[in-house]
Amino acid sequence: MQGCGNVRVLIVGMGNIGRTLLEIGEFEKVYFYDTADINVRGAIKLAEFFVPEDVDAVVECASSEAVKKFSFDILEAGKDFLVLSTSAFADRSFREAFFERLQRSTSRLIIPSGAVGGLDVVVALGKDMVEKVLLETRKPSVSLGMEASEQRVVFEGNAENAALLFPKNMNVAATLGLVVGFEKVHVRLVADPWLSYNVHILTVESKIGKYRFEMENFPSPSNPKTSAITAYSALKSLKDRCGESKILIG
Amino acid sequence: MQGCGNVRVLIVGMGNIGRTLLEIGEFEKVYFYDTADINVRGAIKLAEFFVPEDVDAVVECASSEAVKKFSFDILEAGKDFLVLSTSAFADRSFREAFFERLQRSTSRLIIPSGAVGGLDVVVALGKDMVEKVLLETRKPSVSLGMEASEQRVVFEGNAENAALLFPKNMNVAATLGLVVGFEKVHVRLVADPWLSYNVHILTVESKIGKYRFEMENFPSPSNPKTSAITAYSALKSLKDRCGESKILIG
Repeated sequence: MQGCGNVRVLIVGMGNIGRTLLEIGEFEKVYFYDTADINVRGAIKLAEFFVPEDVDAVVECASSEAVKKFSFDILEAGKDFLVLSTSAFADRSFREAFFERLQRSTSRLIIPSGAVGGLDVVVALGKDMVEKVLLETRKPSVSLGMEASEQRVVFEGNAENAALLFPKNMNVAATLGLVVGFEKVHVRLVADPWLSYNVHILTVESKIGKYRFEMENFPSPSNPKTSAITAYSALKSLKDRCGESKILIG
Repeated sequence: MQGCGNVRVLIVGMGNIGRTLLEIGEFEKVYFYDTADINVRGAIKLAEFFVPEDVDAVVECASSEAVKKFSFDILEAGKDFLVLSTSAFADRSFREAFFERLQRSTSRLIIPSGAVGGLDVVVALGKDMVEKVLLETRKPSVSLGMEASEQRVVFEGNAENAALLFPKNMNVAATLGLVVGFEKVHVRLVADPWLSYNVHILTVESKIGKYRFEMENFPSPSNPKTSAITAYSALKSLKDRCGESKILIG
């Protein structure tokens, strides 16, 4: 895969994913904004949030609050907007306002597959073809802030409530909700004290096929809430959409 | 998902997939070329193959022979080229010549996920991260041209040989080979007399996660060798790459 050598980005949130992106992305230029007062080699720090005129895309890897806070500035600036904290879209009034504004902007919304594979099939099928989606996410109890001696179903319900109640852990549910409709996505979140990595099991029933995707994502060493695959997936989307790739797969 | 209302295409091969694309794609303009002397409502027939100047993309849904025969004309014309019969790339000398020419062209090569989900994760991981891929494809014996009374392993080996020996059935193997390197993809093709649909089981081992994708693709009624999902997947890629979609997922 080629790099993002010709792409200039603003990274919102210089945590674990932001740093990995910076390291593997080979961008032409990187600005970053973070509420913490940190400095990072190879990236230009913004003291206050704004959208520099010379960036091609804004990459959010901060939180659903950050998505809500900065979205309209980004759409106003007409920049492509890559969102990882898709849980923000579980909030219906924000969702409606965002998509209404997006249609009047030159921005495009880019959502990487993130921690869940098989989204390519789900998007190809689309709302009309997909009948039912079940997402079971199993995480180490500690990464859900729990001390437990046995497996426990922490949440069971639809994707909207999953993402509203567990915004840091249920971005996958929110992304699926956006693609096929929140009401069609049933979510089960399980805390497992014996697990050392995150597991997603995605089952999709459609008019033209049945699919089961099982993913064991080893967590990022510095933040067990996120999986290492997330940064790689974001980079793939950026290369495809904003880079000069000659080979576009998926 | 929005349509391809602003996209003009040349469809090479007006078989089952071509017809489905024409039906669901809502293109601005469709030319088609087929070696059979057929007429199709809503599409302009080319008596001889050429690339009309006003198309945005050429969509191949014919055969690996067609890919080899027409590729260089398409790259010469500088049009985006969506390839379904990726088995063509298992031929090393063609592969090398194609990619060399692609780099000097304004064309982009577009390869949809096709019949196999999870390619999003495999592409995000890339050659460096993926250690091993196993693809088990199970097809009804009849669609492999066999009459059998029990399950039979028809082929076992690497992706290059799989695609060379079974070009019509092993495009998925060839696509995986292109993404992670042909030598890392082990393929097993099973003919199953009791099966009425195609099954792909994709297992991926990587440095940052393990993945298992299981797909039951109901076949197209008129051609059991292809799965209905293939046309939908091609359309998703076309919309994303050549259309005016504001929402880009994956």
